Amino acid sequence: MTSEVYLKGQRAKAASYVLNIKTTCEKNDALLKIAEQLINDQDVLIAENLKDLASGKEKGMPPSTLDRIMLSKDRISAMADAIRLLVTLNDPVGTILERIDKENGLRIEKRMVPIGVIGMIYEARPNVTVDAATLSLKTGNAVILRGSSSAKFSNIALVASIHKALEKTSIPVDAVQLIEDTNRETAKELFHLKEYLDVLIPRGGKALIDLVVREASVPVLETGAGNCHIYIDQTADYIKAETICLNAKTQRPSVCNAAESLLIHPDWFCEHGSKLLNAMHDAGVTIVGDATVCQTVNFAQLATEEDYATEYLDLKISVKVVENVFEAIEHINQYGTNHSEAIITEDPLVADTFLNNVDAAAVYHNASTRFTDGFEFGYGAEIGISTQKLHARGPMGLPALTSTKYFIHGNGQIRQ
Amino acid sequence: MTSEVYLKGQRAKAASYVLNIKTTCEKNDALLKIAEQLINDQDVLIAENLKDLASGKEKGMPPSTLDRIMLSKDRISAMADAIRLLVTLNDPVGTILERIDKENGLRIEKRMVPIGVIGMIYEARPNVTVDAATLSLKTGNAVILRGSSSAKFSNIALVASIHKALEKTSIPVDAVQLIEDTNRETAKELFHLKEYLDVLIPRGGKALIDLVVREASVPVLETGAGNCHIYIDQTADYIKAETICLNAKTQRPSVCNAAESLLIHPDWFCEHGSKLLNAMHDAGVTIVGDATVCQTVNFAQLATEEDYATEYLDLKISVKVVENVFEAIEHINQYGTNHSEAIITEDPLVADTFLNNVDAAAVYHNASTRFTDGFEFGYGAEIGISTQKLHARGPMGLPALTSTKYFIHGNGQIRQ
Repeated sequence: MTSEVYLKGQRAKAASYVLNIKTTCEKNDALLKIAEQLINDQDVLIAENLKDLASGKEKGMPPSTLDRIMLSKDRISAMADAIRLLVTLNDPVGTILERIDKENGLRIEKRMVPIGVIGMIYEARPNVTVDAATLSLKTGNAVILRGSSSAKFSNIALVASIHKALEKTSIPVDAVQLIEDTNRETAKELFHLKEYLDVLIPRGGKALIDLVVREASVPVLETGAGNCHIYIDQTADYIKAETICLNAKTQRPSVCNAAESLLIHPDWFCEHGSKLLNAMHDAGVTIVGDATVCQTVNFAQLATEEDYATEYLDLKISVKVVENVFEAIEHINQYGTNHSEAIITEDPLVADTFLNNVDAAAVYHNASTRFTDGFEFGYGAEIGISTQKLHARGPMGLPALTSTKYFIHGNGQIRQ
Repeated sequence: MTSEVYLKGQRAKAASYVLNIKTTCEKNDALLKIAEQLINDQDVLIAENLKDLASGKEKGMPPSTLDRIMLSKDRISAMADAIRLLVTLNDPVGTILERIDKENGLRIEKRMVPIGVIGMIYEARPNVTVDAATLSLKTGNAVILRGSSSAKFSNIALVASIHKALEKTSIPVDAVQLIEDTNRETAKELFHLKEYLDVLIPRGGKALIDLVVREASVPVLETGAGNCHIYIDQTADYIKAETICLNAKTQRPSVCNAAESLLIHPDWFCEHGSKLLNAMHDAGVTIVGDATVCQTVNFAQLATEEDYATEYLDLKISVKVVENVFEAIEHINQYGTNHSEAIITEDPLVADTFLNNVDAAAVYHNASTRFTDGFEFGYGAEIGISTQKLHARGPMGLPALTSTKYFIHGNGQIRQ
């Protein structure tokens, strides 16, 4: 184990014991100072970011990746605003979830407490550095950040700025640790840093997430891929169907809650299929579909098995005519990624069947899958969207960064 | 992958989709039929169990292990009683945890739902077979059981009995799967059965749990070791301290919530140390301690570093004199296993410092660590005691076997 990962892990753990008992006031004060410091340091941040951008261009990175790395005055200002919003959010730490008064006089309280040390492993986006540090801080957790080499200079500058702010507060500077060595080895060391790390959260592409899930012995919070479906039932209202399909596919195709696959009841398809597919086509969406779809419109290509399992993250969609809601459910449970799934129908019973039987974090009746988002749900913050079933599922707000602890007060009670 | 693990995984997954929407009534009906069937089949169960016992004796298993494997009419009757108690417990599935009404008319509900398919990997005790199957069923989950070879005949007979009961109900027989091949390979296959398994819960010794945590790519619920401490502060009441120490160490030394280490404030030790250590000694407890302890009583042996990290599960305890509550906290956070930790003190501020800063699932003020238990907490059932921080921590009742799902009802809403 390199000394960097181990030493920073050790320091983060020690800091977590101090952070653990800080008041909401102390944590909020530190957050405001971080927001202020980022604005004060914006020239340095942008200068360091330019080094990353130059190196990315040299390596031939695509413009979309360079855009994800880029920091501007506006973006830094948006980061500061997000931190100020975070200050206004309720601090979940200390919330009493259960209170049990036993006949023998024992008083048992289950309270929300910080998790301890959170590991964050992510790609490109330097804004994740600030997000992860401030969300962890708000919930009393220390954090170990492991960004990618493509944003190395930006991340170092951002964490330096955060440290400068923390020096002026009662929060230990060691609460935020950045692993500067972006060699693959340091990532692997984090996978197994059970001594100091309580959870590891990967943020990035499917390859990164799969690697972390497969390799890590530290518990992982999987935030993941969204192969989201819309099923249009027999009784679906055409306007609702078209509006929702266009929104879910085209409003922001690169995100995990965008729709990737359309399943349609044969009767509805007969009446409205051609119109809907033309509307999608006109909106610039490439369509692959089953035989029926290809017979109906000439711009569709035949879908393969792989298409049904693919999260395009692009203006492309697979379309399939299915027998009924049951075949739709079966298809989704086979090909879906348990993220967000929608049904368009005017029949509430069919809607219930769909919502109850589709296995996903968020299930929608007559609404766009694009709403699966911590801010849209009103949480005011989002650590990611969990596609696993333990601990947290769906958009994760601040409570997802807490654990629980039983506090038991007695007066000499013993077990009989 | 052997066909057994894969095929049974597939069947359990299919059954989980059926179970998922069963009513509490249907599930309770099945549970009562299982209780009845176990009683009806008791002669067969005992006959099959005798084969395991005979094979265990032949292999020279210690009497304590044979006792854990043994089934008797009384024990089968106790199993049936536990199932009837389970029927009376609240079914968490369907509970609405949050309701969010958005300005755009979207209604978002966060509900408790079954996890899906639970994998249980355990040693010896055939009662875990029945426990795991019925707790999973109550919460709408399918289960895959992988017991040890030492209880093979018992487990096969128990599951046959459960299947016979399920055949008379609306619950699919496939909801309870037993991996009959107890070769190491089948355990390893379960570790990676991500396609069908939503969680894996190991129940058994430290070696088994460590192996599962290290190897599994399926999410694990770690139920674990308890190196539990009692810290006796300066102001501790002698009677409370002695009563609690004797209870926590000697009432049932073989369990995870028994105390394994005693930390004592020097002033208190000066006044009461010899008396307490003699009382422990008289109760048959072997004492290892630091130099001060060894100078005070002649029956103590010098403790090693390893002693402080050892869960004896026996009538043995390590004793150390520590400077104050802060050294006690530091020692516990270094050597403890985050299970149950107690302080004996009459000073509420010192108690608060201890409870807030010790990192454990359950922290006690003036009470025995032996209370960390699902039944003692009033949950009526216990899947295990979690020593991890995600999903569930401490005694796990039925809610620990659920996940959540967002149900969103709209009327054509799209994201702006």
